[in-house]
Amino acid sequence: MAEKADIGLVGLAVMGENLVLNIESKGFSAAVYNRTVEKVDNFINGRGKGKRIVGAHTVAELAGALKTPRKIMMMVQAGKAVDDVIEQLIPHLEAGDILIDGGNSHYPDTIRRTKYMESKGLRFIGTGVSGGEEGALLGPAIMPGGSPEAWPHVKPIFQAIAAKVDGVPCCDWIGSDGAGHFVKMVHNGIEYGDMQLICESYQIMKELLGMGADEMHGVFAKWYEGPLNSYLIEITRDILAVKDEDGQPIVDKILDTAGQKGTGKWTSVESLDLGIPLTLISEAVFARCLSAIKEERVAASKVLTGPKPQFTGDKEAFLKDLEKALYASKIVSYAQGFTLLRAAAAEYKWDLKYGPIAMLWRGGCIIRSVFLGKIKEAFDKDPGLANLLLDPFFKGTIDTSQDSWRRVVATAVTNGIWTPAMSTALSYYDGYRNERLPANLLQAQRDYFGAHTYERVDKPRGQFFHTNWTGRGGTTTASTYVV
Amino acid sequence: MAEKADIGLVGLAVMGENLVLNIESKGFSAAVYNRTVEKVDNFINGRGKGKRIVGAHTVAELAGALKTPRKIMMMVQAGKAVDDVIEQLIPHLEAGDILIDGGNSHYPDTIRRTKYMESKGLRFIGTGVSGGEEGALLGPAIMPGGSPEAWPHVKPIFQAIAAKVDGVPCCDWIGSDGAGHFVKMVHNGIEYGDMQLICESYQIMKELLGMGADEMHGVFAKWYEGPLNSYLIEITRDILAVKDEDGQPIVDKILDTAGQKGTGKWTSVESLDLGIPLTLISEAVFARCLSAIKEERVAASKVLTGPKPQFTGDKEAFLKDLEKALYASKIVSYAQGFTLLRAAAAEYKWDLKYGPIAMLWRGGCIIRSVFLGKIKEAFDKDPGLANLLLDPFFKGTIDTSQDSWRRVVATAVTNGIWTPAMSTALSYYDGYRNERLPANLLQAQRDYFGAHTYERVDKPRGQFFHTNWTGRGGTTTASTYVV
Repeated sequence: MAEKADIGLVGLAVMGENLVLNIESKGFSAAVYNRTVEKVDNFINGRGKGKRIVGAHTVAELAGALKTPRKIMMMVQAGKAVDDVIEQLIPHLEAGDILIDGGNSHYPDTIRRTKYMESKGLRFIGTGVSGGEEGALLGPAIMPGGSPEAWPHVKPIFQAIAAKVDGVPCCDWIGSDGAGHFVKMVHNGIEYGDMQLICESYQIMKELLGMGADEMHGVFAKWYEGPLNSYLIEITRDILAVKDEDGQPIVDKILDTAGQKGTGKWTSVESLDLGIPLTLISEAVFARCLSAIKEERVAASKVLTGPKPQFTGDKEAFLKDLEKALYASKIVSYAQGFTLLRAAAAEYKWDLKYGPIAMLWRGGCIIRSVFLGKIKEAFDKDPGLANLLLDPFFKGTIDTSQDSWRRVVATAVTNGIWTPAMSTALSYYDGYRNERLPANLLQAQRDYFGAHTYERVDKPRGQFFHTNWTGRGGTTTASTYVV
Repeated sequence: MAEKADIGLVGLAVMGENLVLNIESKGFSAAVYNRTVEKVDNFINGRGKGKRIVGAHTVAELAGALKTPRKIMMMVQAGKAVDDVIEQLIPHLEAGDILIDGGNSHYPDTIRRTKYMESKGLRFIGTGVSGGEEGALLGPAIMPGGSPEAWPHVKPIFQAIAAKVDGVPCCDWIGSDGAGHFVKMVHNGIEYGDMQLICESYQIMKELLGMGADEMHGVFAKWYEGPLNSYLIEITRDILAVKDEDGQPIVDKILDTAGQKGTGKWTSVESLDLGIPLTLISEAVFARCLSAIKEERVAASKVLTGPKPQFTGDKEAFLKDLEKALYASKIVSYAQGFTLLRAAAAEYKWDLKYGPIAMLWRGGCIIRSVFLGKIKEAFDKDPGLANLLLDPFFKGTIDTSQDSWRRVVATAVTNGIWTPAMSTALSYYDGYRNERLPANLLQAQRDYFGAHTYERVDKPRGQFFHTNWTGRGGTTTASTYVV
């Protein structure tokens, strides 16, 4: 009888393959299964050859090959496939066994599955795994949530395979049931925002400053050495240097239609449900939608007019402005994202630790950056910080960036350059710091046409007033009778 | 035995009361019921006294008082209350009877309820009723959808009580199951957008131009006479003239925290689900969320800095710019809204008529305006119009407005005035008319870190390519194998 394996894995697509190779490379043995059994054999005889990885042709075989309590990680497509695999596996599990969903599942599913598994005496972990293809192989960021009793069993494996920053693994327990997948969802939303901001910077350089890929490569290389230091700036730098077979920059050959896998959208929907203004990520999601209707845009471009971009100032100075605008916008995006995490923690009763979450994202994952260290410091200083913008470091950064930020957005607006994310970031900043928004007029309108009542600046909160604006309406209000 | 009534009504809150008074005033008789029976007696002995309205103290009594096929309109709170009333009424109904939900129900509920009622041989109508308190009494816009066979039975009553524009009732059949409530939902979303745009104009006048309520009253009075002519401009004009007991403008006493009843949010969520960039309405929803955290904003205003607004130009000229900026932004908002309707028609198999929908909204409802007539004309000319921006009238208007629009947004950005909706409208315009968005870079990033593959500008659509950007990754792609 062969020695039992430390962990099982279901689903040998690229993420699953790379994760199991990562696990094995850290000294653990694994058993793997895939619905299309051919993939198992291909993997065992291919990338998995000569390693402590055994192939299973059935789920029963997989379960039989594992040490107890069994730990089986599912790397299958989010949605029905996860439920299907769970149902296939359950008959082969014993009390205390652990199923781990490492896909991009929507957190309400993870809440439901955790409850379901626990009702059967089993344990469940729903974990975000970030870092894409390469991260899975070399060290991803891992965001596990679910049954707390399962954590000690998977912790040694997860922390071994996770990325490390200054020796600290980018993996720690996030919280009960759906907390891990929620945090991963917000991570992905932030990723949407970061990517959109970089694209807008690129667009400004290209359309306003007339720069080519090589020159922009130089700018991103420089930015990479500064406060914007991050994985996405790094790969943008690298992408801009890659040539096609004809020697031209390959980025110029790529079609401008972005897909989306839904997690960005989920983040926006969640923010609407929780009433948190997550404007930047939402603009980034809508930006992808707009990019997708390429044919319509091509047709519209022949009909609709705009200014011819003209830049007349000092290019180097403007590039410095742009760097600051990107950084300030990024601060707003993260400020909004962490505000959403705070609201979710209250709503779903998760004890989220914001500093450690920022730490998790410092390595392995797509949004990894030096910047996240500053966020951790902000929450270390003040764990109850309501908004990152209020932290002295970020406040100071905005103070020294906002003139540049305003110049960039105003110049883009004047020249017809599309900058929805940078613009909304600035709007949010100007709204958040304004003690008197024009919602007083809006409340008057709502009371006028719908008798919705309003509160007053000179009366305590919770007292509602109604004005008979026209002299015609009754005194009946929509919900309350006052005055 | 008393004569049977033409229609029944359940729910005597302000909207229900006013609707039934409207119905009676058009020559129909009605029977009314309310869960809190006291309200029935108060109404019958109060506002309903001396009219062809009978009170019912039980649902059985209500059903017994009606002509068949019974038509019973529910004006109760959206959600569980509607299902409860349906269940209470069903035992008292006969085949062919019609229940009408006139509340702000979410359209998926209306789809479900229509199916449920029809499965029992009954008929269902879910209808949007817009116009608030006053509209309900004097003539609302009515947007019915549901069981098509029910329409001829309620049509005479609905078209009699609806607002009229040039003699045409602002009520016509929208489509099957949830179509009516969907169109009402989008109407409400557009209402959110219109209100936010007016608030931003007000804020610019107040914070940048230093204008008081009286002076702004004059501006809105002038705007009301021009292309912006609409109910919301009218009531804004009126609101700005209303004084508090101390003689000060009452608008200055109202707290700047706006509530929301959810339909604006639903519209945004729907746009995210259907992948339609509905950026302006979404910003308007988020704007209300931001207004709601008043205490946090007050605290932030003491910490975060911004420019001191300074206006140095020609005030009258700038107010003309502002009028144009508001109008152009409004065009974008409606363009986005109708794009959402088109996507929903395709998704839910509704045969929506966009011109007639614009006509419905011309009277009775909150967003009624001269502008909607132009939208109707646009769809009359081209029922398949992909985007309102492409219509010659709207294109022409934008052409003559966009310099003003850009000046206003750029000035607001420079001066730190919060204009999220106007800004996103302009961003959308600049994105929609751009045949080459920077999503090519975004696709390169996604292919770099996730092997997501991309399409090329020099190859047919549907061919996917992957670049081994680092020279380290494998040839395994996330979903496809190409190259």
